[in-house]
Amino acid sequence: MNFEPDFVADLKRLFEERVLFNQVLGLKIDRIEPELVTAHIDMRRELVGHFGYNRLHGGVISASLDSMGGLAVMAAIGARHMDEAPEQRLHRFGRLGTIDLRIDYLRAAIGERFVLSAEVLRLGSRVASTRMMFRGMHEELFATGAAAYIVS
Amino acid sequence: MNFEPDFVADLKRLFEERVLFNQVLGLKIDRIEPELVTAHIDMRRELVGHFGYNRLHGGVISASLDSMGGLAVMAAIGARHMDEAPEQRLHRFGRLGTIDLRIDYLRAAIGERFVLSAEVLRLGSRVASTRMMFRGMHEELFATGAAAYIVS
Amino acid sequence: MNFEPDFVADLKRLFEERVLFNQVLGLKIDRIEPELVTAHIDMRRELVGHFGYNRLHGGVISASLDSMGGLAVMAAIGARHMDEAPEQRLHRFGRLGTIDLRIDYLRAAIGERFVLSAEVLRLGSRVASTRMMFRGMHEELFATGAAAYIVS
Amino acid sequence: MNFEPDFVADLKRLFEERVLFNQVLGLKIDRIEPELVTAHIDMRRELVGHFGYNRLHGGVISASLDSMGGLAVMAAIGARHMDEAPEQRLHRFGRLGTIDLRIDYLRAAIGERFVLSAEVLRLGSRVASTRMMFRGMHEELFATGAAAYIVS
Repeated sequence: MNFEPDFVADLKRLFEERVLFNQVLGLKIDRIEPELVTAHIDMRRELVGHFGYNRLHGGVISASLDSMGGLAVMAAIGARHMDEAPEQRLHRFGRLGTIDLRIDYLRAAIGERFVLSAEVLRLGSRVASTRMMFRGMHEELFATGAAAYIVS
Repeated sequence: MNFEPDFVADLKRLFEERVLFNQVLGLKIDRIEPELVTAHIDMRRELVGHFGYNRLHGGVISASLDSMGGLAVMAAIGARHMDEAPEQRLHRFGRLGTIDLRIDYLRAAIGERFVLSAEVLRLGSRVASTRMMFRGMHEELFATGAAAYIVS
Repeated sequence: MNFEPDFVADLKRLFEERVLFNQVLGLKIDRIEPELVTAHIDMRRELVGHFGYNRLHGGVISASLDSMGGLAVMAAIGARHMDEAPEQRLHRFGRLGTIDLRIDYLRAAIGERFVLSAEVLRLGSRVASTRMMFRGMHEELFATGAAAYIVS
Repeated sequence: MNFEPDFVADLKRLFEERVLFNQVLGLKIDRIEPELVTAHIDMRRELVGHFGYNRLHGGVISASLDSMGGLAVMAAIGARHMDEAPEQRLHRFGRLGTIDLRIDYLRAAIGERFVLSAEVLRLGSRVASTRMMFRGMHEELFATGAAAYIVS
């Protein structure tokens, strides 16, 4: 199953531009599939957490993984409602809410680009559970996340 | 026990200015005590999570509560090492790392100013555990957090 | 607002006896109020986690705090539906499910009796969030918990 | 790299028998490798969480996944210290402590046997992070876990 190019383009725009804080994070979507979404963030000076080093702020990781989990849920919901017009499916995005989030920080995140992915472990009628990864350019795993979302 | 005004001023500067992403968040410290730290964030357009509404992005909450937990640990460590010169105590900040973080989102965060607090539940020789709160101007609780930090 | 003695007695029996694993844990309710539930566990040999020491197994803590969070939600739901007959309110217990759980272990739990408490931070129409504490006889805090539950 | 049969047998005995609460859970180890540990639990009446149904108590899941994460760390530590005598490596088990634990409950766990696995995502000199899975006989995923442990 594949999403319509228009749906993907609109979801990308909504996520990257209209969720304003995602712009601050510099979150760019690479792939939107029903089972997996991926994105990247390029390192910038404002994202530094530790003066003196060039380490990414842990908050960039938690914020972007929360966004990615939400995007994965959105893709899974989109796939479940292919009978609806793309626009109608996009409206469902506004009704998503994060219930809670856990981030495990494994290693200091240093690099020029970071690669993010998220998948839905379970999509229920009311709650969705996701798992997220935050990696470097060479596949090194910097952090993992888990989150629950309310869907409706 | 009270910290020296210089220590407080330097810790404030380090936290608000040199941790660059805290500037993006607009995190401003209000109180640094051995048992409790508080801060606030003023709402700005870039922090919006949901176009169409004026809701704060969940990532602002997770990122700022992670920072606040770290600040609380720093204050607790500072209190434990009052025999050291203030500058030496500040150096300990660089060695702090978040192990993991949990955020519970209770209500959509809407308002002009948000009030954050954090306290240390346990400071061990290697690991510290903290609890954090994210509130509105009228004490309404928007989110709670818990995190573990490595100290050395 | 107070619950009817019958409702309290029935909820206590259901929780302590019919949830069979709570019997294994030895979980005994002390208080059921709309805002707060408390209980205790007496130390027994089977609950030991570390041979050689007399430490409580961390799993006893996570399992009992999960149960306590659920009980707190049940009390909060009970208070919201005082117009229903007690029996009808009890039926709602069967529809509760834990979405996720976080436990922070602060200190090794050693003692003859442990005191548990839980409160609901938010009761929505679909999701409830709770906070739990696991203490010793002298108020020492051994562990804290946070959990989300689905309600319906 | 493989562990000595004696080391495996002793670690199995220590874990299954001397950690008394693991006996209550009925936790049986199937595999101990440096990168992966697996075990199973057979359903028993005492482990029921919901009267009327035959659902496993969520606390059995959280308790057993906490134990499994610890076992995975123990295996990883064992692999790192192959220069030590097996007995000496086993002593390191006593110094392990869970810092915190998160469990995501995905589906009601119903079945005759449950299959558990755990792997270490990162083993540092002071902190280890693990990921755990709780499955049914047909690979269905009932719950996932993440935990941090202090090692020394």
